[in-house]
Amino acid sequence: MRTQVCIIGGGPSGLLLSQLLHRQGIETVVLERQSRDYVLGRIRAGVLEWGSVAMMEEAGVGARMHREGFVHTGTYLSAQNRGFRIDFDGLIGKKVMVYGQTEVTRDLYAARDAMDGVIVHEASGVQPHDLDSDAPYVTYTKDGTEHRVDCDYVVGCDGFHGVSRKCIPASVLRTFERVYPFGWLGVLSETPPVDDELIYANHERGFALCSMRNERLSRYYIQAPVDDPLEKWTDDAFWDELRRRIPAEAAERLVTGPSIEKSIAPLRSFVAEPMRWGRLFLVGDAAHIVPPTGAKGLNLAFSDVHYLHKALVAQLNDNETEGIERYSETALARVWKATRFSWWMTTMLHRFPDQSGFDQRIQETELAYLESSVAARTALAENYVGLPF
Amino acid sequence: MRTQVCIIGGGPSGLLLSQLLHRQGIETVVLERQSRDYVLGRIRAGVLEWGSVAMMEEAGVGARMHREGFVHTGTYLSAQNRGFRIDFDGLIGKKVMVYGQTEVTRDLYAARDAMDGVIVHEASGVQPHDLDSDAPYVTYTKDGTEHRVDCDYVVGCDGFHGVSRKCIPASVLRTFERVYPFGWLGVLSETPPVDDELIYANHERGFALCSMRNERLSRYYIQAPVDDPLEKWTDDAFWDELRRRIPAEAAERLVTGPSIEKSIAPLRSFVAEPMRWGRLFLVGDAAHIVPPTGAKGLNLAFSDVHYLHKALVAQLNDNETEGIERYSETALARVWKATRFSWWMTTMLHRFPDQSGFDQRIQETELAYLESSVAARTALAENYVGLPF
Repeated sequence: MRTQVCIIGGGPSGLLLSQLLHRQGIETVVLERQSRDYVLGRIRAGVLEWGSVAMMEEAGVGARMHREGFVHTGTYLSAQNRGFRIDFDGLIGKKVMVYGQTEVTRDLYAARDAMDGVIVHEASGVQPHDLDSDAPYVTYTKDGTEHRVDCDYVVGCDGFHGVSRKCIPASVLRTFERVYPFGWLGVLSETPPVDDELIYANHERGFALCSMRNERLSRYYIQAPVDDPLEKWTDDAFWDELRRRIPAEAAERLVTGPSIEKSIAPLRSFVAEPMRWGRLFLVGDAAHIVPPTGAKGLNLAFSDVHYLHKALVAQLNDNETEGIERYSETALARVWKATRFSWWMTTMLHRFPDQSGFDQRIQETELAYLESSVAARTALAENYVGLPF
Repeated sequence: MRTQVCIIGGGPSGLLLSQLLHRQGIETVVLERQSRDYVLGRIRAGVLEWGSVAMMEEAGVGARMHREGFVHTGTYLSAQNRGFRIDFDGLIGKKVMVYGQTEVTRDLYAARDAMDGVIVHEASGVQPHDLDSDAPYVTYTKDGTEHRVDCDYVVGCDGFHGVSRKCIPASVLRTFERVYPFGWLGVLSETPPVDDELIYANHERGFALCSMRNERLSRYYIQAPVDDPLEKWTDDAFWDELRRRIPAEAAERLVTGPSIEKSIAPLRSFVAEPMRWGRLFLVGDAAHIVPPTGAKGLNLAFSDVHYLHKALVAQLNDNETEGIERYSETALARVWKATRFSWWMTTMLHRFPDQSGFDQRIQETELAYLESSVAARTALAENYVGLPF
């Protein structure tokens, strides 16, 4: 099989890239290790920056998002049971869209199908070759048969554990990491969200987040030791702990119910440099991981797709190489800004095991300063809705 | 001796408080452990927030400052030998005044003398008594004789090592501290400053600061291990190291010369709570220390004086107790904000011994974000020129 761009990974960023390239007349093949049902079964965050919303529109998949998504014009921060609002729209005239990653993926699948996009599911043993030559190719096994895709470029959208990043020689690759000493215990429940916006809560007992999928489906998180056994967290224990940490008036109106999903996720910051090696480009989690505080993960993958699809279109359709040459530098500049923001939000809002009294006062003061300063709230808002591409 | 307010410590904050109270008809006695010459010999920072400038005017000692001080409308930050400017005036319409602390003290002494203010120098063994009663008093020894000052209130302007804070019972006092793992090696030289504004430089070899006293007197600092022997730092070694860390174009025009003062100072953040106990009030370094990054030390002492002199005037002249009752809470709110700012500036600009590659990228990104964001620069500027009282 021969194509122009071979995309490894059929999650939202791989699908979006494939869709945007296809609309510019560029052929792609997407190789996905899992089945479509498996991909659609993943539960992920759902806050889209407005730049991500614009990319969905550009890809021709914005209609259902605009119909069913929820526009948020602000968010709440809370310090020790007292909340205050960051008014994105009032501060900078921008907003975000709450629309689950699963829905994004579903819409992209539908669009790829409608254009007869080639997506190979259950492709195992995917392996890129000759990435530093002019004729790279990717091999994989499907239904017991080995296949080969010859292509001009390979894009790794295959996540943190994928094969793509591992193709960059150790002598070239540099990685940066911070592992946070706690996890997020998340619960999904068929209850109305406690608020029509998100609430990020700092509390002496630990962080909490009130989020949502839609008006009947709530997503709540509390900071918890990453090795806590799930059995310890009965639904009642979870709701009791959540209630203690969020603003008093939110706790009063919290509607609880049985959890339909419950899990603990670790938090880490990770960045790999460079994001291009020869004819290989890394996108999203393959190159960087952010803690979920601030909802940057999917948006950062889309940001990479933004730079990369423009670069590939310029190269393949107009033979302009600059975008390709500068992809790593350009994408990383924005990646690091979002990494800084996610790290800062995480550091400001969580309780750390080795935190001194001084550190705690600094957290409290950071929140008090945010509440009192238009400039500080503006800086938070412009990062939350997404810095310009 | 009987007075209304006994002020322990004759540095700038004690003198300013005495002067402001006297102008409202309130009697004070200032007790200073050292001689006047000793006090005037201390070399300290010299960047005044505009609120501090206004207090100097209110105290009737602004004339020489306005004549001889240097108004700065911005400052430079530098990342790895490349500088960019924070334009205070353009961002928020405010500025700062460069005027040495020694000059501030000299002007205040002159004003106190002109009003026949009582300042007892070389008062040893100063000890407050009965601070939790309605009749506190302070004893001290001068020229071999013990003296006693009866008063309504005692104010501790006696610095970090002074007796005042130690009068607050351990069961009441709570302290918060961060000691930074490096010092500032400072040099004073009779050379023209390298720039007419300050330059705060982050560099992989460590922090550097280009500051000044006037157009013929420069003050430079470099980050150095706090236990480095001074002999190691010949003038040549200092200038070479400074040149490596500052913006390239500044290094080119740096004028060097013999140092007339050279010393290494430790950096720490420290806050004591509460700042009032009974009839005792703490002001400035007696209650809090900031690292010098951001020049908040003297300004924070003046901020305390601002709240306290209003509270004492209201109490003693109009019998309104609210200012007194709320002094600790009000002063501490601003103290913590300046402590946060100084900690943040210090953390962003210095090289830390245990810093990971991730931490370094976060620093670089913080500086890149500042350079790119009006909101972020505005937040820095509003803190640097001083948050509103």
